[in-house]
Parts: sequence; structure tokens; C-alpha cells
Amino acid sequence: MKVVIALGGNALLKRGEPMEAEVQRRNVTAAAEAIARIARRHSVVVTHGNGPQVRLLALQAESYALVQPYPLDMLGAQSEGLIGYLIEQELMRCLPQRAVVTLLTQVVVKSDDLAFKHPAKPIGPVYSEKDARQVAAARGWMMAQDGSSWRRVAPSPEPLRIVELAAIRMLVDAGAVVVCAGGGGIPVVLLPDGAVRGVEAVIDKDLSAALLAQQLGATALLLLTDVDAVYLKWGTNRPEPIREAVPGQLHQHVFAAGSMGPKVEAACRFVENGGQMAGIGRLEDAERILEGTAGTAVRQVSAAKT
Amino acid sequence: MKVVIALGGNALLKRGEPMEAEVQRRNVTAAAEAIARIARRHSVVVTHGNGPQVRLLALQAESYALVQPYPLDMLGAQSEGLIGYLIEQELMRCLPQRAVVTLLTQVVVKSDDLAFKHPAKPIGPVYSEKDARQVAAARGWMMAQDGSSWRRVAPSPEPLRIVELAAIRMLVDAGAVVVCAGGGGIPVVLLPDGAVRGVEAVIDKDLSAALLAQQLGATALLLLTDVDAVYLKWGTNRPEPIREAVPGQLHQHVFAAGSMGPKVEAACRFVENGGQMAGIGRLEDAERILEGTAGTAVRQVSAAKT
Repeated sequence: MKVVIALGGNALLKRGEPMEAEVQRRNVTAAAEAIARIARRHSVVVTHGNGPQVRLLALQAESYALVQPYPLDMLGAQSEGLIGYLIEQELMRCLPQRAVVTLLTQVVVKSDDLAFKHPAKPIGPVYSEKDARQVAAARGWMMAQDGSSWRRVAPSPEPLRIVELAAIRMLVDAGAVVVCAGGGGIPVVLLPDGAVRGVEAVIDKDLSAALLAQQLGATALLLLTDVDAVYLKWGTNRPEPIREAVPGQLHQHVFAAGSMGPKVEAACRFVENGGQMAGIGRLEDAERILEGTAGTAVRQVSAAKT
Repeated sequence: MKVVIALGGNALLKRGEPMEAEVQRRNVTAAAEAIARIARRHSVVVTHGNGPQVRLLALQAESYALVQPYPLDMLGAQSEGLIGYLIEQELMRCLPQRAVVTLLTQVVVKSDDLAFKHPAKPIGPVYSEKDARQVAAARGWMMAQDGSSWRRVAPSPEPLRIVELAAIRMLVDAGAVVVCAGGGGIPVVLLPDGAVRGVEAVIDKDLSAALLAQQLGATALLLLTDVDAVYLKWGTNRPEPIREAVPGQLHQHVFAAGSMGPKVEAACRFVENGGQMAGIGRLEDAERILEGTAGTAVRQVSAAKT
């Protein structure tokens, strides 16, 4: 069967880890082993987050005063190259008989998506309030308070269409493991003549993964992170893991924005659009999540209780 | 017919231009128009240099002290993402009916290539002698004098094999314009188990383009730059353009290392390995170079005089 696997940014750089090259390499090595266990038996497409990598690129760009920081679409393209390279190389090591390829991926969003009016996704470095005001004025960025500090916020519009879908499908159908749609894909808007143009935005990578899985006709979508399942009563002293659910059950609850929320939404969308199963859980449990013996499974119909 | 087009780094960022995002975008727009004129009638694969882009990434990384600069293979991967994105998007604008895709590309080199003993390719920022000595000691880099200043020098090993060749061929044969092997490809060495590992090196992009063209069975290889032809007596007050030549004629002369030298070598290799024609000249003359009415044409057999 065909499985789309979405790796959380934290699978590549865990919370609090230094952003050194060899740290990323080591984390990708572990991630590749988990993916390879599935790829040995199934067609696999891999997508991934890029938050920590874009943050480092943004920090480095801010430090070098002689050239203006590049826009988010170009940083996204750089991160697709970097992360795709690491995943591809480590997957090749685990799967010596398989072709592994990385495709640059653009994802179409609507230019009048409401997200452009209400940028909400924090990105890049952390600023003091004073620095935040200066940077906002100098670059025209929206800034917002994030705890006690300030960060740039970017629009996070809905993914509508994966530009390179036909090529991804061709390569997967030919037996390759395809790494694509990194960071949710590079956000582009359609121009009147049918061409596309990059925009300053960040697409949620789980929602792009759900769209990709749906458009590829995948059987399963795995959304992998560093939490072992979706929980009710998260943050209380008695959190309750959800083992299995149908979308309708999940829609009755609110999950953390920017964290479990988009994963639950992505899982529901995939299943509501014909996908057989979406699983959410830890990277190292990937194979067991697919088998239904770990993580949270979201299915079209089930006898599950939340 | 199938044409491999190699864009010089200067096609993306001309000598002396600021490295701003919009400058690169504008240059790529012009390059895409030249490529599209050929792609409307032929199968086209596009490769490109990455010197200015890697220099900016290196400058930005040096400015941010909290994370060590990433190794050259990872900078190469970032540049393939960035430049591939710009070329792909601008080509899509020119070729609304065609699929355009960018594939991350690794190129195998020999771990005992003599270039690793004699690094000679200048890369990254310019240093004073004192700073160069400090940086060399801190990072283990080789540095060399470049005019009055110092720069890091990297090994430039021979390209031997394009890892993603089968996928490139499949996409080209399906009608897509494929952007790949950017910056000469990410240099990797083969490990005993058949896997590959990135190395700190820079492969000459023209030599990789020649290998790619040969392995794809391309009819023509175009090496595009900002000089209108290969010249004899270059730098004198009577330079003599070469309009047509066979490899044997070119081998009798020495051309500038790091500039026309590798282009002439790449053109000769392609033709000596069965390619019909290799052309060298200006980006804006691309179509006429292919037709043989501009630039320098290198062919297997000809009545040409150098």
C-alpha cells in the first residue's frame, strides 16, 4: 500500500538541541531507520517540517547586515534542499536497493486566504519588544508576543494544490521513495496567466501532507512527532490517550493550535476524503502506528471510543 | 532532441551585483526566457552554478557565532533548493503547458581523488591573512591567497556518477523540464555498503553537466556564461573567437582555469563520449548557439579551423 509519512520538525532537531549540522544528521539517521522499516514493505512518500531550519537561516541572515534577509518562500526552498538531502542520504543507507529522490515542491494557496489578513504562525528568531518594533518597521513584518518575547508571525494559508503532484506520483509509482512537500511546501499563488509566484507565508506541513496523501490516493497517512498519541485532558494530571477515533469524535474536542491541533485536523481531513487510516504518534513507533498497535488511529468507521 | 543546458553562476548573479533576492529573481527571469525558447522545441535539462549563493550562505553563517557553519555538502543542498526553486518558477511562467521539476542531485566522487590532497577551488568569503589563519586553525579549512586577499579553497574532484540519474531520465522522458545537478551536484563518496556520504568539496558544474548529458544520451550540451565564445589570445588586444572546433584542436591550447578551461574540457568530454555538439557562449544567445550561428561549437568531426 501507499503511505505518506510526515516528520515533525522535532524529529530532525529536538526541542532545546543545538542547531549544529551533526545533531541534525544524527536525528535524521534515527528517523530514516523508522521510515525504512515501513518502506521495505510499502510505497512511501516522506514530508517533513522545517521550523528549526528556517529559524537558523533567519538568524544567520539577520546577523549579516550587507544583504537583506530573503523572503520566506526562498528560505523554504533552501530548507527543502537541506532537509531533503539529509533524509534522502540516510534513507539510501537504510534502503540500498531502492531509489530515493527529493523533489522541490510548491503548494498553491489562495491569495485572498484570510490567513494573509491575520498572520498567526510564529517563525524565526525571538526578539525583545524594542527590537521587534524596529524589525517590524524596517522590514514590514508582522510581529506578535510569544510568551515574554516577540517573534515574527507569518500567514499560514490553506494548502489547495501540489504543483509537482504528477511528478511525485510518477516517481512513487516507479518504486522510488519520494521526499517532497518539505515545510508544507513552498507557498505560491496562482497568477492570472496560470503561472505561480512565491508568497511570504508558511503552510502547515501536516495539512499539506493530508492533501498530498489524498491526491496520491494513499491508504495511510502517518503524522509523526515526539508525543505518543493524541490525548484528551492534556496538561491535567490525568491525560487520556485516544487509541482510535472517527473524525466526528475528534471534532468534538479542541486540541493545541500549532501542535496537536493541525495533526488532528490533517488526520480527519484525510480520512473524510477517502483515506483509510491516519495515525498520530511517536516517530520511533511508526511501524506500530501503521499496524494500529501504537499511537492514535483515525478511521472512517470504527467501534472506537474516545 | 535532448539538450542539457548549464547556466553559469553569473547568469544568476552577475559579477559585482548585490546578492539581494530580487536581483537573483530578475536574472533568473531573463535566463528562463532564453531556456524556454529552446524548451518549446526540445527536451531540456537545466543545471546551474551556485558560487555566489554558497558565498552568501557562508557569509551569513560566519556572522552568526552560535552555530558552526554547515559543511559544503549541506550548503550545496540548500543552494540546489533555492536556485532550483527560482529557475523552476520562472520556467513555469514561460512554459505554462509544461511540467517543470527540480530534483535534488548527488554526484559520486572518488574518496582518493587527488583533488582532496590539493584543494584548489576558492569558495566563500574573502579574508585578510590574519583572519584566514585564525579561521583555518579554528575550522580545519585550507586557505589560499587569491590576489591580495585570502579565501577558503575546497577540493574539486572529478564527477563520476549521478546518483539520481534514473529519476532524471524518467522525468525528462515523460516531457518535464528537469532542473538538477545544481552547483555540480552535492559531492558524495561511496561507502563500502553501497551507501553514500557527503564530503566537503565542490564539483565543477560544467564537468557534471557533461557527465549528465552523456549519461542521458543528450544530443547537445550548452555551456552558457557571459562571454560570447571561446577565444584564443584572450587578454591580448587581438583575441580570436573560435567559431567551430573538434576536441583535438582545443586540446592544443590552454584556457583559463576556473573559467573557460572547465567549459572547454566539459565540451570536449561530451563530444568525445558520443555527444553530437557542445556549444559555449552567452546565455542570451542560447538558441543561436544550438543552431550553430553564435558562440563556439565543438563537434566530433568538422571542417572547422581554430
